[in-house]
Formats: sequence, C-alpha cells, structure tokens
Amino acid sequence: MPASILSDASRYVFSAIREEDDFAEDLRRHGKKVVKLSSGDPALYYPTPKYIIDAYTEALRSGRTTYSRSQGVIELVDAVVERYRKRYSLALSEEDVIVTSGVAEALTFINSALIDPGDRALILRPYYTQYPVAIQMFGGRFLAGDYDEEDDWNIELDGLAKLLKKGNAGRKGIKYLLITNPNNPTGTVLPRKALEEVVGLANEHRILLISDEIYDEIVFGGARFTSVCELAGGMPYLVLNGASKAFDATGFRIGYVLAPEGDRTSNEIKRKIADYCRVRLSANTPAQYAIASAMANGAEHERTVRELVNAIERVVDSAMKLLGENECVRAVKPNGAFYIFPKIRMDRLRFKDDREFVHALLKEELVQTTRGSGFGAPDHFRMVALAPKDIMDDSIRRINGFCDRHSR
Amino acid sequence: MPASILSDASRYVFSAIREEDDFAEDLRRHGKKVVKLSSGDPALYYPTPKYIIDAYTEALRSGRTTYSRSQGVIELVDAVVERYRKRYSLALSEEDVIVTSGVAEALTFINSALIDPGDRALILRPYYTQYPVAIQMFGGRFLAGDYDEEDDWNIELDGLAKLLKKGNAGRKGIKYLLITNPNNPTGTVLPRKALEEVVGLANEHRILLISDEIYDEIVFGGARFTSVCELAGGMPYLVLNGASKAFDATGFRIGYVLAPEGDRTSNEIKRKIADYCRVRLSANTPAQYAIASAMANGAEHERTVRELVNAIERVVDSAMKLLGENECVRAVKPNGAFYIFPKIRMDRLRFKDDREFVHALLKEELVQTTRGSGFGAPDHFRMVALAPKDIMDDSIRRINGFCDRHSR
Repeated sequence: MPASILSDASRYVFSAIREEDDFAEDLRRHGKKVVKLSSGDPALYYPTPKYIIDAYTEALRSGRTTYSRSQGVIELVDAVVERYRKRYSLALSEEDVIVTSGVAEALTFINSALIDPGDRALILRPYYTQYPVAIQMFGGRFLAGDYDEEDDWNIELDGLAKLLKKGNAGRKGIKYLLITNPNNPTGTVLPRKALEEVVGLANEHRILLISDEIYDEIVFGGARFTSVCELAGGMPYLVLNGASKAFDATGFRIGYVLAPEGDRTSNEIKRKIADYCRVRLSANTPAQYAIASAMANGAEHERTVRELVNAIERVVDSAMKLLGENECVRAVKPNGAFYIFPKIRMDRLRFKDDREFVHALLKEELVQTTRGSGFGAPDHFRMVALAPKDIMDDSIRRINGFCDRHSR
Repeated sequence: MPASILSDASRYVFSAIREEDDFAEDLRRHGKKVVKLSSGDPALYYPTPKYIIDAYTEALRSGRTTYSRSQGVIELVDAVVERYRKRYSLALSEEDVIVTSGVAEALTFINSALIDPGDRALILRPYYTQYPVAIQMFGGRFLAGDYDEEDDWNIELDGLAKLLKKGNAGRKGIKYLLITNPNNPTGTVLPRKALEEVVGLANEHRILLISDEIYDEIVFGGARFTSVCELAGGMPYLVLNGASKAFDATGFRIGYVLAPEGDRTSNEIKRKIADYCRVRLSANTPAQYAIASAMANGAEHERTVRELVNAIERVVDSAMKLLGENECVRAVKPNGAFYIFPKIRMDRLRFKDDREFVHALLKEELVQTTRGSGFGAPDHFRMVALAPKDIMDDSIRRINGFCDRHSR
C-alpha cells in the first residue's frame, strides 16, 4: 500500500470545535469538572421542550420507524412550507423543501452537487468550521470575503464586490456565495440594508446565493432578522435551516434546504439534492414526525423559544459586562445566535497563538472554548453563551483571572 | 451562470431503488393499492420490537436529545464491542468502532477519505446501488468483478484475481475491494472457503478489504455466515454493519464501521473517519441509546430476530416455488438477507429492457420492484421478500400472469 492510504482532499477534514473534546473527556475522567462552552447545543442546558418529546414518543408508538420519503416526510415538508408562509410570507411548493440529517448533511450534498475539483466558492470570514471543509472535500477551493470586526462584524461589502468581480472573471467563475445570518461564530444579525446589497451583488454577478439561517429565531431585543427569502425572489438562491436551534432539538439531526425559485438552476439543484437524499434512503424517521408536529404547534413553540431567547440574552448581557473588565480581550456584542467571539490581544499575553490560549484555558481553568483560527479568524476564541448565568459568569471571571495571570 | 450549475461527478448520483417511488405514489393518490417490493425495510411489515421502542422512549424521557459524541455514544460503542466479542470472538477497542447515520453515511465518509479523482476501487457485480455512486461522487472510478449466477452467485474468483493483478499493477493501484455478505441484491451467503480465498487475494495484493455485513443475522436454515473479521486478522480491513436490518430499525439510521486492526493503514482510516464524524457533529442521539440498550438485551433480540428470519424464510420458500412456475424468469434461491433477484428471459418477453419490464409491472400489476441494471445486472429485477406470505404469493402470481401476457 502507498505511504498513506488517505485521499489528498481528506486532509482538510477536521473540526476545530470538537478537537479538544477528547482532552476535556480525559480531564473529566480524572475527576475535574469541565465547563463546556464549545458546543452550540441549547439542549445541553435547556431540555428539549416536553411537547416535542411527547410528539417524538407518539411517532415511535405509532410505528413511524421505517425508512421514509427520502426528501423528507410530507408532514414535515408541509410544516416547513407553512412556517415560511407565516413567518416570511413565502410561497413554497413541496418540491422546494428537502429534509436532511442536519444542515451538515445538506452542506455535503450541496457541495458535492456543485463543486468539481478546482471549482471555487465564496464564503465570509469568520466562517462556520464546516464550510471550507465541505468545499475542499470535493477538491474545491474557497475564496474568503470578510465580516468586519471594526464595523460590528457586518459584511465588508467593498471587499466582497471586488472578490466577486475578480473571482468571477475567469472561465469557470464562482459556484456560490454562502453567508450566515445570524452568524456563527460572531452572533451578528445582518441589517436588512447590508443583505439587500449582498443580494444585489449576487444577482449582478449571477452567482448562486446560499444563506445559512439556522439561528433565525434566536435574535435579541433590538435586532430584526431579515431572511434572504424576503429579498432574493427572482434569482436562484438556497436557504439552509433546521430544527436544532429554534426547536432546541440538536440531537434529532433534522435540517432542511429550501430552493424557492423555479428557474432552471434552482430546479436542477433541487432535483439533484433529492437524488443525494434517495441514495442515503432517509433521515431519521420518528424525529421528522416529531418536528413536523412541533412546527405545527405554534403556541407551544412561541412560548418555549421566547423563554430560550430571553434566557440567552440575559446570559450574554452579563457575560459581556464581565468581559468588559478584561483588558486582554475585546468582544463585539452579539445580537443573535448564542456565541461571543472575543478578540484576544495577543500583544498583552504570553501565548503563541489562539490555539495555545484555548488549550491552556481548558487545562488551567477547566473552561472549554474554541480557537478562532478554526473559524478562519486567528487571535480570537468562541464562547457559547448557553450555560446558566451563574456558571457563565463564573467562567468569564475565570477567563479574566487567567488573562491577568498570563499577561505580560 | 454556466449551462448547468451541477458538478460533473453529481451526474452519477441517483438511486434505482427509489426511482419509481414518485410514480408509485401517484398511483396511490389515484386510489390504487401498490405492493411495495422495492424497499429492503423489515419495519414496513414487521413492527420494530416493543423493547426497542421502549428503550428509545426512555432515552427521550431521560434527556438524551443533545448532540452526542461524534464517533458514537460510548454506550453504543461498548455494545458493539460486546456484540463482536460474543458473536465473532473479536477483541475490539472503543476506537475501532465508529457509529454513522446508517451504512450510507459510512460509505460517503470512507470514499471521501480514500478516493482522489482518478482513483479506482473494486466492487463486485451485482452491487448495492450506492457503491458506485459513493466512489464516483469523489471522482473515482470503479472496477467490477462478478458474482457468478451460474455458480449460485458465488464470487467469480479467477476473474477477481485477474482484475486485482491487472488493476493493481499501475502506479496508483486499487484503493479497496468491497464485498457484500450476505448479499444485496442476490441474497447469497458466501461460503467460508470462498471468503478465505478473497481474504487471501486482498492480502496478497495488499489491498484494503471492506465487507458490508449489514445482513449478518438474516441467514436461512442451511447456510452458515462467516464474517471477514473471523478470517482477516493481521491485515487492514473494515466491516460495515448497523441496526437497520437485524434490529428491524431502519428509520433510526444507525450504522457503524469497524476497523479492528492496529496497523498504520487501519489507524489512519479510523482517525480520519472520526474527523468526518466530528464535522457533522453527531448521529441521532436517542436512537443510539435505543440501539445500545437493544444490543445489550440478548434474550429479547434472539427471540425477535429468530421470528423475523423464520418468517422471511417461509415467504422466500413459497415465493421461489411460485416463481418456478414462470418460464420467463429464473432465480437462484437466496440463503440470506431478504432479496430475490430473478433473471428475466428477455428473449421470451416483449420488453426492451429490465427498466421497461419493471415499470410495466408496476403500472399494470401494481407491484413495485427494482430493475437489475440499477445493480449493474441488466435483465434482472429485485424483489424484497418481506411482505406477508399471502401478499407476496399474490404478487408472484401477478408477476407470472404479467409475464404470460407479455410473452412472445
């Protein structure tokens, strides 16, 4: 056999988010109490609402345990159609909705469907860890625009316009532009105006726009979320979403792709993604029925998601205040999702890089976070603001003490 | 945008098994009663055993709804380790077991981890529909050896030896040899001696051997199943398996990969597959706990799987007898899994090909089967022998009448 049996493309496959999990587990095995601020998992601290568990149990009891429709059980597809009608006044047909095993599976299918070796796709930095992996898995390369930290992590539009112009000039062009709104890891909710400009740019350069909107219901007091589907009508675009965050049901692994338009490109994509779904037979069946039922139960959902968002906002507010006392870090206040993404002032600290910072923080303070370089933004780290306020506050105090101790 | 936005590789992505599903659904919407003999889904006719549903419900009630360990929850990993210790006297460590969302996800990860564009992998024809797709998705090409219908669908060993010799002579070699035992679509349980020769060939040519053994518990009276893990110790190999068939839990989507050896190649593969798992976060969490619990409940499992296998064997026996009355088809009797894969004597029938045969059979007799060409074996069709005996017998009688009517 050759020196290594692994493919070239596979070397890009890794997850910074979970790279410290084994070390954290080791610490736990040695009796240490690690606070996990690395997993964007509301169900870790806020149990999945009882009405959803009941619906899941009911699906199991009534025999929903077979393989199911590959593109998603019709009950869930219809619930998604109804969700978008009510929430965004969007008219979807059943064929426009495709259910996947989390947004993660959707990203794999979309990139396989679109990316040939050497193809390029455009993402914005800091990016969710899987985006470059999913492109590179298929031999593609990613171009990166920027969210601008100095402008509250809004999209750096001039740079994006230049990249689109330059990148799209070649024979093959750019396959798609992928944005995240609200953002992971920065927690930014994009202003409608910025979004309008992005849609305009995609349209002008005739580039498929993909918007990952998995946090669309996790938006804090002052901010207002706009979906790409409210602006992009008439051009090909995809929306990624799922039940993990808004329905507090991460372990169910229910995501979906919307391809709302009926143009040739949109039709090609939705038919092909359906083929990918057929090849893997189906997503978890009872979980789909559970989410279908949960989506149809508007009153319970409104109540539980409001409680969740209010709780997260309180935790974020308090964490931001405490972080403000730390002169070695500086964080833009998030207005959605549940992440805080501070910049580390490396010049004031005795660490080589963010990886060393995050590892030492876990080792010394038992607080697990994620290095910013995993999101394409070195000298940052990501904290998940889902732990209860007292635990989160205590973690920030430990981070502050840790920075004090290691400052130069 | 270009003429088509889709990638070149994506044109290989389709599933013959599910290609008639939409047409069958249309027929149902028009009040027709379609018998589905196209889905290898025991749970369609034999409800998932109650003790497994209870375990699933218990997992949900006790809050197992978060993301979980990417390579599989330890409880399930340990249950798999114990299953292989008891059943095959195999000593596995926890790192050797990786849980996936069905074998389908495992195949995607393995092929992405191993296949660069232009790489080749060796499968045997007739093959499960996903095998070539998973290779071609990553720009790879497949070479195909043969199961020999004239020899009860055993492996055509001389041809395989030649292919290995020739295919492995180039600079890059063949990345792996994948076999299926018991087989889908032929229902063949490979004799131990044939398996020994395959293991010998893989070893001689230093090629990674992968054995898909998802049907290892579905074996009829006379046959004896041998796992590759009983023979391949000392060389790198992978076993694919899962809960779908033996635990009658298809809709849970729980599969797993075993990499039992500790050599460099095996270690590289298991570490890299774990990376793929981390990128997609986790498989469905409560389903993993349900299967962990079910695997640990040996008595209930033995009872329910024995009932299932006995029922399938009765259905197969009767179906084979009735098929024997049809002079336009000829089927080798399966000794495992739940498929019958008859050869269509096209010379006696007025159909262009197996696709036309299968489509007309669905349209005229409301019996949905799958065309053999989808498995790389034209002039065949696959029937799933899971419907109750009276329905299955009636379907075969309809097939016999259909062939009579269309014979020339």
